[in-house]
Amino acid sequence: MKNDGVNSGVQGLDELIEGGFPRGFCYAVVGGPGSGKTVFGAQFLYNGATMYGEKGVYVTLEEPPYSIVNNMMRFGWNLYELENREKIAILDASPIREPSRSKYVIKAGLGTEEFSVDGLLGTIIEAKRKLDAKRCVVDSLTALSLQYRDEFEARQQILKLIRTLTEMRLTTLLLAEASEERTDAQRFGAVDFLAQGVIYLHTYRIRDSVVRALEVRKMRGVKTVSKLCPYNFTEDGIVVYPQETVFK
Amino acid sequence: MKNDGVNSGVQGLDELIEGGFPRGFCYAVVGGPGSGKTVFGAQFLYNGATMYGEKGVYVTLEEPPYSIVNNMMRFGWNLYELENREKIAILDASPIREPSRSKYVIKAGLGTEEFSVDGLLGTIIEAKRKLDAKRCVVDSLTALSLQYRDEFEARQQILKLIRTLTEMRLTTLLLAEASEERTDAQRFGAVDFLAQGVIYLHTYRIRDSVVRALEVRKMRGVKTVSKLCPYNFTEDGIVVYPQETVFK
Amino acid sequence: MKNDGVNSGVQGLDELIEGGFPRGFCYAVVGGPGSGKTVFGAQFLYNGATMYGEKGVYVTLEEPPYSIVNNMMRFGWNLYELENREKIAILDASPIREPSRSKYVIKAGLGTEEFSVDGLLGTIIEAKRKLDAKRCVVDSLTALSLQYRDEFEARQQILKLIRTLTEMRLTTLLLAEASEERTDAQRFGAVDFLAQGVIYLHTYRIRDSVVRALEVRKMRGVKTVSKLCPYNFTEDGIVVYPQETVFK
Amino acid sequence: MKNDGVNSGVQGLDELIEGGFPRGFCYAVVGGPGSGKTVFGAQFLYNGATMYGEKGVYVTLEEPPYSIVNNMMRFGWNLYELENREKIAILDASPIREPSRSKYVIKAGLGTEEFSVDGLLGTIIEAKRKLDAKRCVVDSLTALSLQYRDEFEARQQILKLIRTLTEMRLTTLLLAEASEERTDAQRFGAVDFLAQGVIYLHTYRIRDSVVRALEVRKMRGVKTVSKLCPYNFTEDGIVVYPQETVFK
Amino acid sequence: MKNDGVNSGVQGLDELIEGGFPRGFCYAVVGGPGSGKTVFGAQFLYNGATMYGEKGVYVTLEEPPYSIVNNMMRFGWNLYELENREKIAILDASPIREPSRSKYVIKAGLGTEEFSVDGLLGTIIEAKRKLDAKRCVVDSLTALSLQYRDEFEARQQILKLIRTLTEMRLTTLLLAEASEERTDAQRFGAVDFLAQGVIYLHTYRIRDSVVRALEVRKMRGVKTVSKLCPYNFTEDGIVVYPQETVFK
Amino acid sequence: MKNDGVNSGVQGLDELIEGGFPRGFCYAVVGGPGSGKTVFGAQFLYNGATMYGEKGVYVTLEEPPYSIVNNMMRFGWNLYELENREKIAILDASPIREPSRSKYVIKAGLGTEEFSVDGLLGTIIEAKRKLDAKRCVVDSLTALSLQYRDEFEARQQILKLIRTLTEMRLTTLLLAEASEERTDAQRFGAVDFLAQGVIYLHTYRIRDSVVRALEVRKMRGVKTVSKLCPYNFTEDGIVVYPQETVFK
Repeated sequence: MKNDGVNSGVQGLDELIEGGFPRGFCYAVVGGPGSGKTVFGAQFLYNGATMYGEKGVYVTLEEPPYSIVNNMMRFGWNLYELENREKIAILDASPIREPSRSKYVIKAGLGTEEFSVDGLLGTIIEAKRKLDAKRCVVDSLTALSLQYRDEFEARQQILKLIRTLTEMRLTTLLLAEASEERTDAQRFGAVDFLAQGVIYLHTYRIRDSVVRALEVRKMRGVKTVSKLCPYNFTEDGIVVYPQETVFK
Repeated sequence: MKNDGVNSGVQGLDELIEGGFPRGFCYAVVGGPGSGKTVFGAQFLYNGATMYGEKGVYVTLEEPPYSIVNNMMRFGWNLYELENREKIAILDASPIREPSRSKYVIKAGLGTEEFSVDGLLGTIIEAKRKLDAKRCVVDSLTALSLQYRDEFEARQQILKLIRTLTEMRLTTLLLAEASEERTDAQRFGAVDFLAQGVIYLHTYRIRDSVVRALEVRKMRGVKTVSKLCPYNFTEDGIVVYPQETVFK
Repeated sequence: MKNDGVNSGVQGLDELIEGGFPRGFCYAVVGGPGSGKTVFGAQFLYNGATMYGEKGVYVTLEEPPYSIVNNMMRFGWNLYELENREKIAILDASPIREPSRSKYVIKAGLGTEEFSVDGLLGTIIEAKRKLDAKRCVVDSLTALSLQYRDEFEARQQILKLIRTLTEMRLTTLLLAEASEERTDAQRFGAVDFLAQGVIYLHTYRIRDSVVRALEVRKMRGVKTVSKLCPYNFTEDGIVVYPQETVFK
Repeated sequence: MKNDGVNSGVQGLDELIEGGFPRGFCYAVVGGPGSGKTVFGAQFLYNGATMYGEKGVYVTLEEPPYSIVNNMMRFGWNLYELENREKIAILDASPIREPSRSKYVIKAGLGTEEFSVDGLLGTIIEAKRKLDAKRCVVDSLTALSLQYRDEFEARQQILKLIRTLTEMRLTTLLLAEASEERTDAQRFGAVDFLAQGVIYLHTYRIRDSVVRALEVRKMRGVKTVSKLCPYNFTEDGIVVYPQETVFK
Repeated sequence: MKNDGVNSGVQGLDELIEGGFPRGFCYAVVGGPGSGKTVFGAQFLYNGATMYGEKGVYVTLEEPPYSIVNNMMRFGWNLYELENREKIAILDASPIREPSRSKYVIKAGLGTEEFSVDGLLGTIIEAKRKLDAKRCVVDSLTALSLQYRDEFEARQQILKLIRTLTEMRLTTLLLAEASEERTDAQRFGAVDFLAQGVIYLHTYRIRDSVVRALEVRKMRGVKTVSKLCPYNFTEDGIVVYPQETVFK
Repeated sequence: MKNDGVNSGVQGLDELIEGGFPRGFCYAVVGGPGSGKTVFGAQFLYNGATMYGEKGVYVTLEEPPYSIVNNMMRFGWNLYELENREKIAILDASPIREPSRSKYVIKAGLGTEEFSVDGLLGTIIEAKRKLDAKRCVVDSLTALSLQYRDEFEARQQILKLIRTLTEMRLTTLLLAEASEERTDAQRFGAVDFLAQGVIYLHTYRIRDSVVRALEVRKMRGVKTVSKLCPYNFTEDGIVVYPQETVFK
């Protein structure tokens, strides 16, 4: 492991990317519904804060914070407690907003006319400075892009987001939804190559059951292992099995 | 069953989702024509009211109420009687409207210029308050989206609907039609991830006959069983068979 | 046969739908070129009038009446004679119009600027009242939709048509053309779920020959048989074979 | 052969359609490049005039007349001689026009701003009257549709053409080009059902060679044989082999 | 060989088209990148001038002349020398233009606002007259179409080009690029049937290697051989093998 | 090796293209995410400068220079050192810009309104002159095209870029991203034939692992080897294996 990268906190993943994500860039995590993108993002922040001493910012543009927090309890991750201890900040830009318990308030949620990427970035900058955060998760680019009427506009805003997050040297996971047939893939064309790396969470239906596989599709500056690795949801969150195969 | 969720009322389904739907969110039920979406929705409300003591609101944007009520009689579900006993309310926003027997009148049905999601929500709020309803069914998002000339506008209105229903803490099923080839899937892209869960009702044509299978594609905060489960229409409505397989 | 529905007049079909079409709704009959949609519609009206004592209205938006009438002679159905006896009315809204022998005159045919669904509905209402008709056939929605420049406009007009026909309690067949690849399917997306039922007339090319199969895809309020049933053109019109299979 | 229809002049075809085309309607002949649509059309007129005593009008919107005439010489069909004897008229609306030898002059060819379907129809009417023509060929609808900027406009003009030709009681072949993948099929959606019949000229590539097959897809008022019939170019033009099979 | 057509100059091709291209028309040569369209065009002119005594005009809308000339040197074809001897003219309308050595100067190259098909045709007419040219190559229609913002405009200009070249009685090859999946095919829909013939240069990937095959898809007035014929690049340019097969 | 072309610096590639790229033209290098396009480009410049004495200009429109430089360190290529010794220039037009260490400053990066291809070309010209550069890499056309709202505009700008680089006689690699399904291929239609050559970097997923293969799809003026050649990332960068096969 020659890389002094940012540990993913996902068991089995770091050895596929020479020890961790190169520090300070944005990485896309792309998967279909139910593929575990939010779990992946929360695990990155939770383990970052508790195992690697790196604080983080979770930006939600989809689910309200209490929903994410509740859902992560099943892995024993108490994100609210972590937030109280100022290890993480959860920024709520979800369309379904509630009176925030966070110190960091985004003025307008997704789906309102007042929402802007500039406003969102302002709050991220504020939270990053106060916490001295090193990690960030944006959940999700798909939600963000639906705010804009045409593809060009969405792309420009995503570009601005990536640019600013990279300038802030935050190691960021950009969660993005793609159907199995990748119908929506076009919308994120820009992400695929503006991101420093792309991780796919595949879902294969083999007969009656579903098989999940993680693929590191691109990781700049890192010698990656080019294979499909099965992954699963365990009590400790997502675990990747780099030695196993998907198709016998 | 550690989950204290909302029982689906569909035999065989709850065990796939740790005992029931997490309370207070919206869930998409997606299927082709003839897949039984309306049966699924009516069963959720009927059994909710009669077996679990939870009142419900059925919002129809497609069929007129008498058609739904008649059709459900074959399962022995008398929805009008339930409405008379104030266990449920059937809100008629269908294009083919008739003098309503309901106390809760939506001012304009789908397909008229006066129709609006705001108007629809106003009546849902009123009915929810008076009944103290816990459950809701919207039949269907597909019909709603046809009211709008472009995809962006439809998406914004669906977002508003989901946001308000979630704020009302109604456990809601959003019925949505998708062709087998999912041609219309794009239109509901937003639903796929704004909903807290997605259930697919698949229809496979194997030789001359048709096989039906339910798949829990996503269910936030719940450890789901990732397999295709055959389902069928019985005298008691839809029954799911979690132990059986679709393809031998 | 517990259903007191409207007999289809197509041998072999009623047993697939619990005895007949539930009365007073619209049903889509979808098939490719040469699949026999017009035969299906004429058979529904002819047998309705001669066998079941129910009068009917045939609305043609494609072929001129004399062409339909001539073509049906090969099954021994004399539609002009039936019209003279006031058992049926043939309303001519076809682009190729001739001096009408009908009492019920639609002011402008398809393809002219004066044509409107409102005008069409006015004549249907008039004919329905004078005849006391119970059945209706609209041949075809595909032709109707070509009158409109965009999909949204076409959909609104089709919705208006279905709404009014349902309010008139006419049991109506809406004929619709769909290529085998269903290229035009989108245009009728609204029909698929606004109609109370959908019947597909499939055409499979197996080696050098063509095999025809009827599928009841959806029939609200009725327990349908979910299989592909071969059908054929006989001297008595279309016959469906529910006991036979398409693929060995 | 109970049908007293219009003999196609194509050996082997009439027996597939009960003896000939029902008189006075338009029929689409659809095929890819090189499938022999022009040969089919010329054969229909040549044999019509020489074998069945029916005069005809050939409208070319693609090739200049001398090119068509020269190409048909290989089958021994001298169309110019036939025109001199006033058995047929060749109307030149091709983009590449030359001083016409025909008495019937279309004012403007395809691709000029002056071209109009009305102008075209005017000349057809004139030629039909003077010759007392019974048959017509329009070569091709594909060319005609390229004159219009959008699909709706093209469709309206094609509708007008079909309407007027039917009113004139001309038995007409409408040649239309469709790629094997039918990419352009949409453009002719209207033709598929406005035409009284549709004949496909298929081209299958089996290993290194090409196999041709004719299919009568639709023929209103006629009991058609639903199979793929191989066809070939012989010294006498196209010959169809109804007893043979395409795929062994 | 009954045809007194224009020899293609491509060994093995003439016998597929009854001895040569019918004189005075336009023929499309369609193939993917690397299929040898430019070689085909240059070979047609070079051999035309040196073997058959027919002068020619090469119109380049893609590569600058020096690039084409250099590339053809590997087949021993010195096009500059031929131009000096006034056997051919190379007209430069490429986007990357250089001070022309040709007497025939096109005022503006592709990609400038001043470029027009009229201007291009003016220079072709001038060169044709001075040389008394019989042959022409347009390289390529694909490049030409990119000059126009929409498909309709491109099509009108291509139509004008074909019309004028045919009026000039030049036997012309129109080179056109089509991806293997024919994504761009639509754009040349007009070419497919306005051209008197269409030759496809196929590229099949069989395992690790690439197999090339020529197919005469259409050739009006000529009895063509309907099979895929392997072709290759030899020291003398393209050679077609009509007796061999592509797929064993 | 009769070609005195520009050595690619990629082991195994030159023998596929008669010794190197013909001098002074643009070549497209097309591949999916993670296919190694940036490595290919950097290797071309690094080896060009250190092994073949040819200076080069690297234009980045995606990653900031420090990211590229860091990533190439794993191959032992110190691009900053090379830049200090004035062997190469790295021009930063990336959206995420930093205070440049380069002498050659592009006024505005991609994604700003001030960005223009003219501005970019101005700086390339300046760097080329000062260094006497022979080689150039543009990373990437995909990023560039996202700057423009419609395809036509993007194409015109790419055309201008290719034209100017060719006029400067720079041997240039144009990196372009194409998904495996080539969804974005259309956008680069112009590149495919304006470029003098096209190299594809394929990624095949065979069971659980990924196989990479280089294909020289087109190379004008060069006799290319038409096969898929496996390639890999080694300590010395990309190595192509012309003697090996991809599919057994």
